[in-house]
Amino acid sequence: MNRKIRLEYLKRKIMTAADAASLIKNGMTVATSGFTPSGYPKAVPLALAKRAEEGEEIKINLITGASVGDELDGALSRSNVIDKRYPYQTNDSLRNRINDGLIGFQDLHLSHVPQMLDYGFFGKIDMAIVEALAITEEGGIIPTTSVGLTPQAINNAEGIIIEINTAQPKELEGIHDIYITEKPPNRRPIPILHPKDRIGTTSIPCDISKIKAIIYTDIPDNVRPLGGIDEASKRISEYIIDFFNFEVKQGRLPKELLPLQSGVGSIANAVLGGLVDSKFYNLTCYTEVIQDSMFDLIDEGKVLMASGTALTPSIEGFKRLYDRMDFYRKHCILRPMEISNHPEVIRRLGVIAMNTAIEADIYGHVNSTMIAGSRMMNGIGGSGDFTRNGYFSIFTTHSTAKGGNISSIVPKVAHVDHTEHDVSVIVTEQGLADLRGTSPRERARKIIRNCAHPQYRDLLYDYLERAEKGFYRHQPQIIHEALSWHTRYLNTGSMKK
Amino acid sequence: MNRKIRLEYLKRKIMTAADAASLIKNGMTVATSGFTPSGYPKAVPLALAKRAEEGEEIKINLITGASVGDELDGALSRSNVIDKRYPYQTNDSLRNRINDGLIGFQDLHLSHVPQMLDYGFFGKIDMAIVEALAITEEGGIIPTTSVGLTPQAINNAEGIIIEINTAQPKELEGIHDIYITEKPPNRRPIPILHPKDRIGTTSIPCDISKIKAIIYTDIPDNVRPLGGIDEASKRISEYIIDFFNFEVKQGRLPKELLPLQSGVGSIANAVLGGLVDSKFYNLTCYTEVIQDSMFDLIDEGKVLMASGTALTPSIEGFKRLYDRMDFYRKHCILRPMEISNHPEVIRRLGVIAMNTAIEADIYGHVNSTMIAGSRMMNGIGGSGDFTRNGYFSIFTTHSTAKGGNISSIVPKVAHVDHTEHDVSVIVTEQGLADLRGTSPRERARKIIRNCAHPQYRDLLYDYLERAEKGFYRHQPQIIHEALSWHTRYLNTGSMKK
Repeated sequence: MNRKIRLEYLKRKIMTAADAASLIKNGMTVATSGFTPSGYPKAVPLALAKRAEEGEEIKINLITGASVGDELDGALSRSNVIDKRYPYQTNDSLRNRINDGLIGFQDLHLSHVPQMLDYGFFGKIDMAIVEALAITEEGGIIPTTSVGLTPQAINNAEGIIIEINTAQPKELEGIHDIYITEKPPNRRPIPILHPKDRIGTTSIPCDISKIKAIIYTDIPDNVRPLGGIDEASKRISEYIIDFFNFEVKQGRLPKELLPLQSGVGSIANAVLGGLVDSKFYNLTCYTEVIQDSMFDLIDEGKVLMASGTALTPSIEGFKRLYDRMDFYRKHCILRPMEISNHPEVIRRLGVIAMNTAIEADIYGHVNSTMIAGSRMMNGIGGSGDFTRNGYFSIFTTHSTAKGGNISSIVPKVAHVDHTEHDVSVIVTEQGLADLRGTSPRERARKIIRNCAHPQYRDLLYDYLERAEKGFYRHQPQIIHEALSWHTRYLNTGSMKK
Repeated sequence: MNRKIRLEYLKRKIMTAADAASLIKNGMTVATSGFTPSGYPKAVPLALAKRAEEGEEIKINLITGASVGDELDGALSRSNVIDKRYPYQTNDSLRNRINDGLIGFQDLHLSHVPQMLDYGFFGKIDMAIVEALAITEEGGIIPTTSVGLTPQAINNAEGIIIEINTAQPKELEGIHDIYITEKPPNRRPIPILHPKDRIGTTSIPCDISKIKAIIYTDIPDNVRPLGGIDEASKRISEYIIDFFNFEVKQGRLPKELLPLQSGVGSIANAVLGGLVDSKFYNLTCYTEVIQDSMFDLIDEGKVLMASGTALTPSIEGFKRLYDRMDFYRKHCILRPMEISNHPEVIRRLGVIAMNTAIEADIYGHVNSTMIAGSRMMNGIGGSGDFTRNGYFSIFTTHSTAKGGNISSIVPKVAHVDHTEHDVSVIVTEQGLADLRGTSPRERARKIIRNCAHPQYRDLLYDYLERAEKGFYRHQPQIIHEALSWHTRYLNTGSMKK
């Protein structure tokens, strides 16, 4: 194990996970590594949960890069350790407690979180818990399968606990590119001109006097099974690829396209997967999460470089990735989420943003976070960072959910995460609506005709036409009826009349 | 007049406004100079309106920097020349036609519009009409009181009509800093590190072979009277200055603050005006529009440098500005709106965003554009550019409108322009709510307690408490009642019960 801690002095900090966990006190604010179920601390949170289960009163505010695995979010939720949680989550135990009103959750743009740590907007950060591959001779922390906000956690925390994870492949060393911005008024341009550009170091500089504990663990990343690719997602992918072809023909996109961003999940995976069989070559990605279909694109030589902040394989993709890490390391860069999601870089590169909607309305607003406007699913994540600053922004969704009882195209979304000013294109398995240059009423007709499921089209036209008879005809609404589809669903289990 | 056209060859292009207007044909897409009632073309639009009034069938799509004066938006609306309009407006005649459904309007983030011209998202740009102070020996166009999207209009239009406005003070020459970005994938960092940085040229490079007409005019900018500063706006300003003081004490802002952005209008003017009597010195501004109160701050030596894309004095401020242009030119820079509103620069500088809301809801969503979700006021303008990318974002509004019949704090806004993920602080004359780090329910109590008018507080608490008894308690809503305050207002003329 010697090469894991290359600075002799630090070996005296090695202890058990239980001893390290005892450094976390009631009322602390804790920031951790981890982005998706990748690279998050595991052993110390499990030990902390155990203490709480044994009856100790302990509550913390928890800040992570994004969602993390069950050993952190799940175990600490079930043991009632989490008081407040930022900025994103996907864990069932945690989500249920948020929706029961037991855990306070603030849903934040991921690009904002690292700088909010730097700015002191979360108050004092008592402890950072970060998973590491190794600690270098200079005291640099080498991350594992994600970077997330680890640099800012390390910089801003008063104490640091390091989990060296021996289950992570040593070939990860060198994949990271750590670049840290100054605070205003001393910030300088971020010198990325292409997704392949490396601008930083391969480990995170760390004030080693702050390291309070080092523990060893071999718990693997708790990755999830791959969702199957359904016919509807395949069709969505085809519409998007047709759209890309059209834009290239019109001279509005270069033939290698522009760097692609793709959200997490099965539709997103299918959309990227569709590119494997397309005629596009020499693609690049500037995204958050590098998923299975990206490895296919790299294998096929379609994608030259994928820049992200996390490697997030499925259970099925896990072995393949780990077996060939030496190969994938040449085609992937893991950056801090501040950089992977940075508006400056996204806008400069002209990233094509592709994200998933829960629902969209006829005027092009998108709900990404809350069912019926109240029930939190995961959060906005990085979708806003890319949507707002990209070359254009595409949202995908199946046209219906719950066996057809929910229409994903509604008169008015119950919660707005992306506004009409931000959304360029909406795609369902029914078709694609290009909203660029459209007035609200043009937009409504395009979305209903191209994206809504046929069984809801007449109902949507009926709403639009009656609204257009009202007094204000720019973006016509029948305000007392605008959310009635959601009310009907809550009352009857269906949006159908 | 010789020094206005410094390139001999171009003098043969001089003609009357009527002859120049005859180059505009039915169905054309026209992009013009102008941002607020500053620096927009006047004589050619008036001549064009005259043709239409005389019976000629002529419709155009009109793209400007932001709002413009009545000679352009008003005259062309009243003569039914405008078919579609982008991206912002404040003219009564135009607004009424938009709300009557007679003109198609797309409301866009101002930072997006220049690049959308470059990307071809508006289709072919047939003609640019731009007001100029002069044309240089190299064929460069020197703008007047605004820059807006003039560089992109000139670059992308097939033909160019230039209005040389002899009423604009010649001392404007040198105030502009023209920097034009490449298209992706060839974009480079924008090298602004401080609001005072000049990175470009003082005129806009122009392919002079595209110049179809040059006309002379002396119609002045159609500036508006200064709205009085009421007591409520003064109180809002005081709350914000207290907040700045607190943030400086907490070490979260430097004592010179960070560059300020302030929206247009009387509250915005009051907020900046309040700084004249504050203890703050050595301030800078990185904003869109330089208004009267900025001249006060410059006179007092409080503001060292104001960077914007338009000088927008009131009628009262007009003479003062024009009389001392030589002085103000040393303290102001006018940039293209692509740069004044650029996410890269706004985030790098850490701009403090201050904008006005029509209404805000208890969970921190802000409506900036549409009364009751349908009636367009002006548009989102640059508020999203600054809100989304600034150090933090402040929204101001009076707590009530229409003599108390409208509460500006509602259970749910009728249109969302800025989401809960984007809004840091809400201020009314009742107080200030700092939303950083808050869960939705914490936010609701802060906003009701600190910002709502006392006569609406109990009604808002009642809604919140009943909603909290529902099934989903993250962001509790009673979905069939969420917009009932707007319905009540539309039905009874008051939100009161």
